Amino acid sequence: MLIRFKNPPVIRAYASVGGKEEYEGPLGAGLDFHDSENRFSADTWEKAESEMQRTALSLAIAKAGMESKKPDLLFAGDLINQCTSSTFGVLDFEIPFLGLFGACSTAAESLLLAALFVESGHAKNAAAVTSSHFCSAERQFRFPLEYGGQRPPTAQRTATASGAFILSGEGQGMFVTDAMVGIARDAGISDANNMGAAMAPAAVDTLTRYFRETETNPSEYDGIFTGDLGFEGHRIVKKFLTELGYDPGERYQDCGLLIYNRGMQDMHAGGSGCGCSAMVLAAKLLPEMEKGELTNILFIGTGALMSPASVQQGESIPGIAHLVHICWEKKGGKRS
Amino acid sequence: MLIRFKNPPVIRAYASVGGKEEYEGPLGAGLDFHDSENRFSADTWEKAESEMQRTALSLAIAKAGMESKKPDLLFAGDLINQCTSSTFGVLDFEIPFLGLFGACSTAAESLLLAALFVESGHAKNAAAVTSSHFCSAERQFRFPLEYGGQRPPTAQRTATASGAFILSGEGQGMFVTDAMVGIARDAGISDANNMGAAMAPAAVDTLTRYFRETETNPSEYDGIFTGDLGFEGHRIVKKFLTELGYDPGERYQDCGLLIYNRGMQDMHAGGSGCGCSAMVLAAKLLPEMEKGELTNILFIGTGALMSPASVQQGESIPGIAHLVHICWEKKGGKRS
Repeated sequence: MLIRFKNPPVIRAYASVGGKEEYEGPLGAGLDFHDSENRFSADTWEKAESEMQRTALSLAIAKAGMESKKPDLLFAGDLINQCTSSTFGVLDFEIPFLGLFGACSTAAESLLLAALFVESGHAKNAAAVTSSHFCSAERQFRFPLEYGGQRPPTAQRTATASGAFILSGEGQGMFVTDAMVGIARDAGISDANNMGAAMAPAAVDTLTRYFRETETNPSEYDGIFTGDLGFEGHRIVKKFLTELGYDPGERYQDCGLLIYNRGMQDMHAGGSGCGCSAMVLAAKLLPEMEKGELTNILFIGTGALMSPASVQQGESIPGIAHLVHICWEKKGGKRS
Repeated sequence: MLIRFKNPPVIRAYASVGGKEEYEGPLGAGLDFHDSENRFSADTWEKAESEMQRTALSLAIAKAGMESKKPDLLFAGDLINQCTSSTFGVLDFEIPFLGLFGACSTAAESLLLAALFVESGHAKNAAAVTSSHFCSAERQFRFPLEYGGQRPPTAQRTATASGAFILSGEGQGMFVTDAMVGIARDAGISDANNMGAAMAPAAVDTLTRYFRETETNPSEYDGIFTGDLGFEGHRIVKKFLTELGYDPGERYQDCGLLIYNRGMQDMHAGGSGCGCSAMVLAAKLLPEMEKGELTNILFIGTGALMSPASVQQGESIPGIAHLVHICWEKKGGKRS
């Protein structure tokens, strides 16, 4: 479902937070805050993740100069059972709060909904924050760290990262000009260590629907960035897009491959998690737009809609992909 | 955050599904479908819950006469880890899908967001579906049924229920005229067997903010229905509202107390769950509006933002409450 914003909201401010590996990776210098112990002064990994959301949102609010007048509305989500990282991360702000679950697609989902609220005029500004933490995710989805589980080459690493964004009806800079809501797609993948392959069909589906409905093709965008498909999923998407007549070339990249240095850091197929795409957007893509290196990008959050129980029960892993189109100017999808 | 819909969407169709106890309760005759074995032809409780969502949504789409043209957009949520009941419940519809997590407040949250999409014109119609299942919730949040765990009197019973709603920009009948997004409130309750008390402060907060911002008082509404506060929470809300000058009298009721017959059915403090308020809205409140018995109601979804892990780690249980105002005519909150 394509949403063309009649009065596109602007991304007024943004902030990113990461852990040790994210700081040591190629985007470390772009982080607003990091903790090389991944603990963020908390005594559980779950609280550490909440603290990352709290920090990212605080920094974004401060950058927007909104300490005295908080955003009207907040969207947040994460991967932890019942989204408690978000609950405890945003509690102290006392901002009206709508919780989301779109697995790792939540960063794009939250931007899309925040943009809609601002465009509708019901909110002057709205915040979106998402997070993931390697240690809380490992013990929930796989094994506690102490177990020392081994991972196959197709496995991805949940990023210890958070990104927060403030959208506003007034201002200049980067605009969310349009967006597309994803359809859940099930390709029959049931291997929880190969989520890139599980999510890739949804990304291909959303991108091809988007190109058709907007009557554009990949060459009209400076960059096309999926959220966390990693090495496997990125390869699949590139192959399918090319076969379908939408060869994206080198402009198609994946946040899960940008967040770490695959050669130097042992991250298997790349990064993943609600915080991965949010951090790459806030620590790399939006700064590059501000520097003029990018002017017109597609940001596609990708989510694997599974739980440990659904995998244990032999269910397949449906994927979903929500797309957000971000332009330096309100050009509505055409390059300047 | 009060949202006044300039062009209020209409609830074009709705449907409800329940299990054995819900059918045997006072609202059984209002259900569109029930299964007295609670299995819904599925071989796991989790799949049974998905099947309830699928059935409720199918029935609502059929009642809306939309079999050939599906809704533009779908909001869904549930209580199960990573919301897999929703994922597998809505997968076959192939409708653009935004997943939500608001604990038991999700029915109201999904109505609010569906209403916004329709009002904004980005969707001609939007669907909202939520569910809960006693057996999937028990083994996830407490113990597998086989354990035979005992529950204290303040504990509530997760309803085996689902409700689906189709909102549209065109039509007559029941309109969503305005809504209020809740703020997460933490009263320090950490007893997972007393979630009514944990959610009550958020309900009081949302209701009092709503009365202040709309400059109305409880006597202007035919009915005020919280989602699943049960006996404990209902009593607390009534007491606090009265002390704050908003005595709601008998018009204030709770869906968790309406869904079962407390005297005849051994349900302790009442029903709860994402499906509880959705089913009561679809099996009782909206039918009563169509019959002219109600014309102007406040529906307040109430959620306890906790997980088994957060409770085990000693965290408190914040609550949240989202309000949706439903009128027989587009009167914007005043009784006819």
